[in-house]
Amino acid sequence: MNVDEYGAGTASIEILDTTLRDGAQGEGISFSVQDKLAVVQALDELGVAWIEAGNPGSNPKDMEFFRLAGSLSLENASLCAFGSTRKKDALPAEDPHLQSLLAAETGGVVIFGKSWDLHVTEVLRVSLEENLDMIAETVSFLAERGRKVIYDAEHFFDGFRANRDYALATVKAALEAGASRLVLCDTNGGSFPDAIAAAVRELTGTILTGGKSPPRGAYDCAAPPSTGAAAPVTPPILIGIHAHNDAGMAAANTVTAVQAGCRHVQGTLVGFGERCGNTALAAVIPSISLKLGFPCLPEGRLERLSELTRKVAEIANVSVPDDMPYVGGHAFSHKAGMHADAILKVRHSFEHIDPAKVGNDRRFLMSEVGGRSAIAERARKIDPGITRDHPVTAALAKRLKALEAEGWQFEGADASFELMVRRELGRYRSLFRIEAYRVVSEHPTSEVLACSHAWVKVWVDGKAEIAAAEGDGPVNALDGALRRALKYFYPELEQMRLSDFKVRVIDGNAATAAKVRVLIESTDGQNTWNTVGVSEDIIDASRAALVDSLEYKLIGDIERRFKAYL
Amino acid sequence: MNVDEYGAGTASIEILDTTLRDGAQGEGISFSVQDKLAVVQALDELGVAWIEAGNPGSNPKDMEFFRLAGSLSLENASLCAFGSTRKKDALPAEDPHLQSLLAAETGGVVIFGKSWDLHVTEVLRVSLEENLDMIAETVSFLAERGRKVIYDAEHFFDGFRANRDYALATVKAALEAGASRLVLCDTNGGSFPDAIAAAVRELTGTILTGGKSPPRGAYDCAAPPSTGAAAPVTPPILIGIHAHNDAGMAAANTVTAVQAGCRHVQGTLVGFGERCGNTALAAVIPSISLKLGFPCLPEGRLERLSELTRKVAEIANVSVPDDMPYVGGHAFSHKAGMHADAILKVRHSFEHIDPAKVGNDRRFLMSEVGGRSAIAERARKIDPGITRDHPVTAALAKRLKALEAEGWQFEGADASFELMVRRELGRYRSLFRIEAYRVVSEHPTSEVLACSHAWVKVWVDGKAEIAAAEGDGPVNALDGALRRALKYFYPELEQMRLSDFKVRVIDGNAATAAKVRVLIESTDGQNTWNTVGVSEDIIDASRAALVDSLEYKLIGDIERRFKAYL
Repeated sequence: MNVDEYGAGTASIEILDTTLRDGAQGEGISFSVQDKLAVVQALDELGVAWIEAGNPGSNPKDMEFFRLAGSLSLENASLCAFGSTRKKDALPAEDPHLQSLLAAETGGVVIFGKSWDLHVTEVLRVSLEENLDMIAETVSFLAERGRKVIYDAEHFFDGFRANRDYALATVKAALEAGASRLVLCDTNGGSFPDAIAAAVRELTGTILTGGKSPPRGAYDCAAPPSTGAAAPVTPPILIGIHAHNDAGMAAANTVTAVQAGCRHVQGTLVGFGERCGNTALAAVIPSISLKLGFPCLPEGRLERLSELTRKVAEIANVSVPDDMPYVGGHAFSHKAGMHADAILKVRHSFEHIDPAKVGNDRRFLMSEVGGRSAIAERARKIDPGITRDHPVTAALAKRLKALEAEGWQFEGADASFELMVRRELGRYRSLFRIEAYRVVSEHPTSEVLACSHAWVKVWVDGKAEIAAAEGDGPVNALDGALRRALKYFYPELEQMRLSDFKVRVIDGNAATAAKVRVLIESTDGQNTWNTVGVSEDIIDASRAALVDSLEYKLIGDIERRFKAYL
Repeated sequence: MNVDEYGAGTASIEILDTTLRDGAQGEGISFSVQDKLAVVQALDELGVAWIEAGNPGSNPKDMEFFRLAGSLSLENASLCAFGSTRKKDALPAEDPHLQSLLAAETGGVVIFGKSWDLHVTEVLRVSLEENLDMIAETVSFLAERGRKVIYDAEHFFDGFRANRDYALATVKAALEAGASRLVLCDTNGGSFPDAIAAAVRELTGTILTGGKSPPRGAYDCAAPPSTGAAAPVTPPILIGIHAHNDAGMAAANTVTAVQAGCRHVQGTLVGFGERCGNTALAAVIPSISLKLGFPCLPEGRLERLSELTRKVAEIANVSVPDDMPYVGGHAFSHKAGMHADAILKVRHSFEHIDPAKVGNDRRFLMSEVGGRSAIAERARKIDPGITRDHPVTAALAKRLKALEAEGWQFEGADASFELMVRRELGRYRSLFRIEAYRVVSEHPTSEVLACSHAWVKVWVDGKAEIAAAEGDGPVNALDGALRRALKYFYPELEQMRLSDFKVRVIDGNAATAAKVRVLIESTDGQNTWNTVGVSEDIIDASRAALVDSLEYKLIGDIERRFKAYL
């Protein structure tokens, strides 16, 4: 697929990220004020147009954030505060909620209002007319005070199905009151692309260009991209889309809405959000930019998408799902030998885009189906001279096959694989040796020790060191003791920590005597690497993966220092 | 949204699950032969039409599976073997790969062939004509030998874009050679719904009803559902869709293809698959059944979707993502107070479907309506008098909620759940008590002991017993010591053994200090049961699961003996 099929557009799409508001409503997601500031910096670096950063009226923490955020100097993004239409039977000027939206002193304010008659009469419990007044008065109150008003039409698509004329009337009310963005929300996430396309087309057709209620400014963005007409970058009014993923349609509904004329896209970078989440911007920005041909970010920023998505996830203390489109760790990894083989012949044969365009990497998984080409491809990271026919490749293939038969698996353990390549190439020297260890777990817990404790004795360059630690479990205790012993020799290990730990029983039939495979992910703040260990004994498997992780870190540091020295 | 908007259909959609083939190509997914048999049972219980279970030609493990699978008695599903078109310049009868497809003795065979001219000339490196012969000869070879041939047109949508006529010619070749299903694959996962809809409509229009190449049988399924014409359940030819999620479009492309006329849907229940995964069937079956109005499963099975999806995920030792549409743990959970409030006023105000229809629960109402029916249903195994409104059901719901918050999960641990029901009903008495244990793992292994050894002291009816054992790992040693100590009191434990052992790290962020959940499967030759334990310490989590397993066995034996005595 390339841009031409959909018609190239020079118009850009305006991105609004609501990680800090709608995303923070996701289960398990919470941000401190410092976290929020760090997310704003990352999103600004990425280059989104708007950052919806909180609801100052409902949350005192958000108010404090807006106070601090005033002093940030942002390169690309403008901040918005978020709130609802005024209370029923109240004047906007007397609504404390609207006052706090003004007090947040943001360039934009996102106001959500009701478009579904059911919500008006059964949830808000006001008349349909009163709701229109609430929308119009709230929008004009804020617009008159210099705010750019982004109007979120909650449940627009459900409302459109239930009472088309009323849903359109609510949006018209916001438009006439001075809203500069009309955002159609699939709040429950249950709509399909055909319904999204039909409603967006109807809206742009009847309300905006129908002549009955002409907009204040020219509406020049709803034309389908195939007309080739360049839309201005900041036109007076944009139609937007805000989707949720309850039926797995968020990405498709967003892309379809853009095809139908939307030029403002809301979502959360990683996809955080209530229930099944909001549209994951990291998963739709590449579709819109690379396949529909509408730039969404400043020049050169799409290439940082994978990195900055991981950064925002890291701040929220969650991982980017490995299978996430475009930016996930597995998004461009190939296991079947046939696929790997085909890609080495023709790059785009099994890849829908070039991973470099979104800052991700192609990975070939080492497995029984992998094959020599894939092994050589990966070994070139250590030595660029290695080819498919290099003797080291043959030796590695043989060694891999033997290890895989014993239950080892290197597809999730790049660092262990690289150490193996180094050993084959003779570019490896052991940096420490564990002479002995003992790990004890006991019940009941004694009064002086945690439930598990360990000691370990290591040798480095002819010197021995012994250290002990206690921990929440036997592996945690062993990890602690080993790093304490090595710290005397390698103080840089202080920067390093384990960020994930996985255990997999390889042959279920032998039950507790079965072999286990331990996968460890480590980080030193800058880099992240994965190692593997296999044994019948979970302690021993963990020891193997820990040793690889520590050696990988130490060897990398030595090489970097050596290169800097040269 | 309801069925009527899209037009109710009485036609059913045929589901093919490829968890065991395409799903097994996902990174980190691997199945033992026993796992594969367990997945087949779960999918058959769910009621899918076809289970694509492996590639006997490329994998000896798959051949062994097909040999064992022959003796399964399946209620709903038929098995298929999977393979490619014959090798170039070879007769089908001389292709060992096709011979192994026949040897698998399945009712269906899935054959994939090339539809994208680029792949024919650059990857396969044969002429376009030769590829058509390869397709036709392979399909007719298998069809003549009594196999139902499901033809997967690899890269169909990319091929259709690149060379429309050739892509259509490949499908026509399969059709004329006797394929009974023509499945259009978005192999790279990069297509959008508009392209899917256009290609499906073109195919059904030109190839199938265009008159130039009429199908062998009547094609009566491509009519849009709005005609109201009932399509037969097993028509001669069905058009199918096979999507991947590289642009986050798998669910939307699948639903769109059904709207455009497809009546056969492929995917993997949990969404396993290479890169970003295949269409997650658990996330599209509800859309197709509840919103498009095409039943996909036998009566009463959609309600078991959440449970069986978790079961298949458990077998693969992964978790169902919490934000997965329809079946995820957060899919119907509400954090914003306003949403919760609205839902209490009008159920469907913030829910796109009733979660009970897919066997999921509304989270904030866990102790209210949603979860109770399911809990009562399971508790009736112990006491048939338990209803949804029984006080024990409320108590169990509360207890479950607290335990789930700590990381426990009873989906894969029926025996632990039954013990909990017994405790609530007062039909439980502890049969032994562990006073203390100590487990030691050491390296290097001493000359007299295995790498791990344990002792444990237990009390039974006022008598104490202490026993020791060595083992391959700490859990194996503890298991041995515990059973040795109890054998003095309960000789029947001799018949029992552990048949599977799984470890899952619950909170990856805490690395080796994270909580682990241990699942144990036990058998006494006649019955098999599952138990669970959770702790920061893997030894302690294993101890909890072991104790439940032993108690479940002992209590069951006592009850059986008592009933026999009456």
